[in-house]
Amino acid sequence: MSAYHPLNAEEAIQLAKSIPGRFPDHAELECREIGDGNLNLVFHVTAKNTADSIIIKQAVPYAKVVGESWPLSLDRARIERVALETQYSLCPNLVPKVYGYSDELAYTVMEDLSEYTIMRKGLIEGIAYPKFAEHIGEFMARTLFYTSDLGMNQQEKKVLAGRFVNPDLCKITEDLIFEDPYRESSNNNYPDHIADEAEALRTDLPLHFEVALLREKFLTHAQALLHGDLHTGSIFVTPESTKVIDPEFAYFGPMGFDIGAVIGNLLLNYAAQPGWSQDEYTQATREARLLEMASDVWNHFESNFRMLWNDDLLDEMSRTPGYQDYYVSQILKDTAGFAGCKMIRRIVGLSHVADIDTIADDTAREAAQRKALAIGKNLVRHHRSIKSFEDILTLIQQATKGNEVSI
Amino acid sequence: MSAYHPLNAEEAIQLAKSIPGRFPDHAELECREIGDGNLNLVFHVTAKNTADSIIIKQAVPYAKVVGESWPLSLDRARIERVALETQYSLCPNLVPKVYGYSDELAYTVMEDLSEYTIMRKGLIEGIAYPKFAEHIGEFMARTLFYTSDLGMNQQEKKVLAGRFVNPDLCKITEDLIFEDPYRESSNNNYPDHIADEAEALRTDLPLHFEVALLREKFLTHAQALLHGDLHTGSIFVTPESTKVIDPEFAYFGPMGFDIGAVIGNLLLNYAAQPGWSQDEYTQATREARLLEMASDVWNHFESNFRMLWNDDLLDEMSRTPGYQDYYVSQILKDTAGFAGCKMIRRIVGLSHVADIDTIADDTAREAAQRKALAIGKNLVRHHRSIKSFEDILTLIQQATKGNEVSI
Repeated sequence: MSAYHPLNAEEAIQLAKSIPGRFPDHAELECREIGDGNLNLVFHVTAKNTADSIIIKQAVPYAKVVGESWPLSLDRARIERVALETQYSLCPNLVPKVYGYSDELAYTVMEDLSEYTIMRKGLIEGIAYPKFAEHIGEFMARTLFYTSDLGMNQQEKKVLAGRFVNPDLCKITEDLIFEDPYRESSNNNYPDHIADEAEALRTDLPLHFEVALLREKFLTHAQALLHGDLHTGSIFVTPESTKVIDPEFAYFGPMGFDIGAVIGNLLLNYAAQPGWSQDEYTQATREARLLEMASDVWNHFESNFRMLWNDDLLDEMSRTPGYQDYYVSQILKDTAGFAGCKMIRRIVGLSHVADIDTIADDTAREAAQRKALAIGKNLVRHHRSIKSFEDILTLIQQATKGNEVSI
Repeated sequence: MSAYHPLNAEEAIQLAKSIPGRFPDHAELECREIGDGNLNLVFHVTAKNTADSIIIKQAVPYAKVVGESWPLSLDRARIERVALETQYSLCPNLVPKVYGYSDELAYTVMEDLSEYTIMRKGLIEGIAYPKFAEHIGEFMARTLFYTSDLGMNQQEKKVLAGRFVNPDLCKITEDLIFEDPYRESSNNNYPDHIADEAEALRTDLPLHFEVALLREKFLTHAQALLHGDLHTGSIFVTPESTKVIDPEFAYFGPMGFDIGAVIGNLLLNYAAQPGWSQDEYTQATREARLLEMASDVWNHFESNFRMLWNDDLLDEMSRTPGYQDYYVSQILKDTAGFAGCKMIRRIVGLSHVADIDTIADDTAREAAQRKALAIGKNLVRHHRSIKSFEDILTLIQQATKGNEVSI
């Protein structure tokens, strides 16, 4: 197995056996490939008579998206693995453990999380995750603080950033999030009934201006090691536990991009609620819960981040009075802007979310699409004026009522 | 010559002979080591009977500054060479040509510029360089535009940035420019008679706040490939020609850092004029010329940069109306702030400038030091409010009169 080739089930079993201490000696192992086939092979290796199991994730040298094949560097397997290891070292309870890897074969052997649910699926089913905001707030505060110039030696940070040069996957984000939704592109994907919305996005120059500013931040602001794709499909949950997976988009970028991804995806589920809730009471309860969750995500991030800043700051100049408040306020503005961009692209861009696309009722689905776009646009348009999370809630509320207002 | 060792003159001659076409066959070569011994060996190899000559610059694995030895990566020779090649490819008339190199021995063989003068020396002698602003404006516009996300393929830019991970030399800047002048540090170096100024810098928290913002930009804003140390000692000039040398501090950072370096160093010479000009008329003439030159540097940068943007833009979203103006206005603010930081550190920090330190008269030297600090502080303090180069001239004038004002 020296040069790259896609693994088969038998090779995956041999690999699993070679990891010390993972399976009892002479255990009989079974293997199932459970990947969705778009970007990676995912082998689930289990022991027949015990609960022991393991995941082997292998990158394939292309991405299959809506039938198209894009060539995609296998180096993303190395980036994902180094990101997992870095994040695990900072948040061992919130990230799967890596047991082994091969950069040449582009695979990583890691902890199996079969007992967890993909958060997007759980949210669609209306499940509450009362610990989620606390967990993800801690994850983001710790991974972002300790890989920034605030919490990491600044020379080590530069060397680490050199290991996360990730042009292929950054380009996916640059195209699909920050460009295609605002122009004619064969990548775009939306139903005819919202063609008016797509057209409006293409001609809204004040909106393009705000997107251009956010795009520039994504391209140049090497603030911290991001997960880079922190939507609710990259998070495994139970009501008690949270695990963040799939950081193959990791690179050094603006902190608000990760926080905005989480909040934008909670808001996509929020916008979808009229299509999922069985009655008005359920809808009102879930909507309130989702907004509270979004707010709590920010609040837990902020309180953890400020605590780390006060306790563990390495950068002397950053002790200057007022600087922490300014820095956090900038992250909040970025968070709102990136959340908005991510909502918009999930409605008119290439890649959608099940929260909205699987709503059965046509009218309810269209309403959800328009609502998500209204919220997303309002957040992008006003992100630079935002001063508190309450401002974000106000923008959501106003967009929901069809009124965009300045704050 | 396989492993690193400092070259001797005989080896330098052999190396020079090995460069195809540089010297006539059988030429008799002579070699002199002309470096200042602080960071590099510099061999000047000349033919006895022709005008042919060459420079061989070799890094040594330490920096000697005021008697101290700092260990310093030899990788800076590779960084300098790749920067020279990149800049030469964009501005062949403004950068010495590279003829050969060895990363292992940390040397670069390049064009000899012995007929040029170091610009700082020329300015101290009161020489006018009527083409300088045009040349350096073009150099900065082209090198910064074509290595930014505006003018370079964004994936290639990321890969190129990976070749310019430069922690050792960035740390010198981070410490000496953005930290030491604002705290007690054994690196600081100032005469007793301006101890009051140094003390005031250490306790000026509003100033620290602005410096912290600029420091954050230097640490994180990977906008374009910078020269990284573009003071008047890194520029060779004749009245007709300009060559930019010594880019060993090159890394991907904020464009305003390079532009601010040029302008800050012109302003240091401006502040020194009462110590150099023989009479009031000469002083007034030179001061006016220096301010005009600073202004022209910005204007030539801006007009070239906007022309490249209009003609050669790769980034679609950057065509959004208003974005170019906004982007340029941000560069101007950064330019002013970085210019101010560079002026301050040259008065109280480790490394000074001959423009001021070699003024013979004690009173005139002290006046120049205080004037440079007043200008530097005023630029840093108000950099975020600056809207045009006229605002910068106003801040200079007000500081010179001892009045700091808001704009």
